[in-house]
Amino acid sequence: MTGFRFHGGKLAEARAHFGPGDWIDLSTGINPDAWPGVDQLTMDWRALPDTGALADLEAAAASCFGTDPAHVCAVPGTEIGLRLLGDNLPGPAIHAWPSYRTHGEMIPGSRAADLSDLAGLQDASLIVANPNNPDGRIIPPATLLGWLTARQHHPSWLVVDEAFADASPEISLAAHVEDGRRLVIFRSFGKFFGLAGVRLGFVLGPRPLIARYRQRLGAWPLSAAALAIGTAAYRDTAWIAAMRQSLSERAAALDAVLGRRGFRAAGACALFRLIETRDAAALFEHLAARAILTRPFDYNPRWLRLGLPANRQALDRLDQALANDWGGDG
Amino acid sequence: MTGFRFHGGKLAEARAHFGPGDWIDLSTGINPDAWPGVDQLTMDWRALPDTGALADLEAAAASCFGTDPAHVCAVPGTEIGLRLLGDNLPGPAIHAWPSYRTHGEMIPGSRAADLSDLAGLQDASLIVANPNNPDGRIIPPATLLGWLTARQHHPSWLVVDEAFADASPEISLAAHVEDGRRLVIFRSFGKFFGLAGVRLGFVLGPRPLIARYRQRLGAWPLSAAALAIGTAAYRDTAWIAAMRQSLSERAAALDAVLGRRGFRAAGACALFRLIETRDAAALFEHLAARAILTRPFDYNPRWLRLGLPANRQALDRLDQALANDWGGDG
Repeated sequence: MTGFRFHGGKLAEARAHFGPGDWIDLSTGINPDAWPGVDQLTMDWRALPDTGALADLEAAAASCFGTDPAHVCAVPGTEIGLRLLGDNLPGPAIHAWPSYRTHGEMIPGSRAADLSDLAGLQDASLIVANPNNPDGRIIPPATLLGWLTARQHHPSWLVVDEAFADASPEISLAAHVEDGRRLVIFRSFGKFFGLAGVRLGFVLGPRPLIARYRQRLGAWPLSAAALAIGTAAYRDTAWIAAMRQSLSERAAALDAVLGRRGFRAAGACALFRLIETRDAAALFEHLAARAILTRPFDYNPRWLRLGLPANRQALDRLDQALANDWGGDG
Repeated sequence: MTGFRFHGGKLAEARAHFGPGDWIDLSTGINPDAWPGVDQLTMDWRALPDTGALADLEAAAASCFGTDPAHVCAVPGTEIGLRLLGDNLPGPAIHAWPSYRTHGEMIPGSRAADLSDLAGLQDASLIVANPNNPDGRIIPPATLLGWLTARQHHPSWLVVDEAFADASPEISLAAHVEDGRRLVIFRSFGKFFGLAGVRLGFVLGPRPLIARYRQRLGAWPLSAAALAIGTAAYRDTAWIAAMRQSLSERAAALDAVLGRRGFRAAGACALFRLIETRDAAALFEHLAARAILTRPFDYNPRWLRLGLPANRQALDRLDQALANDWGGDG
């Protein structure tokens, strides 16, 4: 199962390893109830994307994030945006751990840090995810702003990966991005909108940083599809509001199932839950044998992350799988 | 007309500036007869792209290029691939000029060079396009390999942008890429296949360079669409062969029209032609007034580039526009 410990979404590998069947993929934090407008859009694949279309997308996204479009640069996937940060923001840096693995690879020499012990580290840029992945831990905005203020007289930055923040906009620092403030935020399109195949993300920061990203990416950073889908989805404010409510209810339903089966879910991110168990590998295998794919972690043998089941039927199958013959500590 | 001198494809700006109408866009080198399979494909936007799908695309592309997939890395648009080269290939560098503007921005401190005078410059990496843009000039592979050999005892590289080479595969150096050889090649999907909105390109090089690109881009560099469309298109060898023949015939037909109207087209790239005229700005305006968009250049007031007309009707309209009332030197 080694391969499943690095990334979620390896459904093809799961089928090859555990056999075919009606798989339920709970291995990612991607919303299983995708923005439905995607099937109505027609893409113009032929022309080079128009610069006006890029501006429209960034304006729609900025409005959703609650910031000025001048501080927003669209990128072809948050992953690429994160990996280009090192060009713009040299070290030293520290990254909260455990979190998203890429955070440790963005800035050469970045070292893992414990968020409970940041005293004396103000001269290093700090990289955190909020909500955090995989544990769903949420840092209050006031705490984050305190860490930013502590860096006021240093050349260091606060970097907040808000890839999972769309479901809980009240925790976002997007409105605090401005010129002269060393705050950079990453947002992701695919998770909340359930369309990870689009590859679309955003960097929010002071305008000189945004200008450097644009220089790195060139004139046509996004596909016609990312432009069309992203713009229409961020403008669909009714769907966004309803989905925030719905995700919160679904997460509560998942919590109820987990609780009934003896697990306590950590964190408060609506798109996934982390459980701790004596032998997560055994539970992963037990669920995989029942065609339910979850996400174990190479660095913690007690952790298993579960995404939201797509519907009541999937939730019931998870419930049954945890009930009937699971001989662990659940 | 300043804005039209930097990039082609500004049809929306042309409409706004010169008025609506049935515009013919000859301002790019994008094949107007796009690969038709795109309309039959359905995309899975929901899942994160599978790593197997990326390997399939790179294998299909490598087979078309005539090289080993181990030397091929797909990127979300050649533009981004070019701009990331500076991270992997530090200076000094020289870039052939005139050519694609980005070539001068890839490696900090790169200086423009005349290809007729490369003696003594072997310690600098050399960046050339083949065929060149905008003049369609083709450098014989033996000449390029000579420049590569001249760099054998230097740490410098030969960088060949083959964005327009698909129509004339015999000029490609793709088969010469190997470990231990400081040769890097860029290929572009959108131009030959007429699908620039997909944003797909490739870097070909020694495996350590390919590994560094993969590290920079992360696990999901491409959209579901780029993976699905690219793989199917590169596998469509019958369409590719027929299109090579067709483009060559269309370019000959364009040459005939230009020749009849007193212009001599430069170069041998099947996807566009460059003409020299006393006042290219006046000819640009004359054609734009007849809803034909072409591509002038800020650095040469005598040059105008014309892409291939999409069909006989468009070619006839160009013919008429050049014949009837053009008062220039044509």
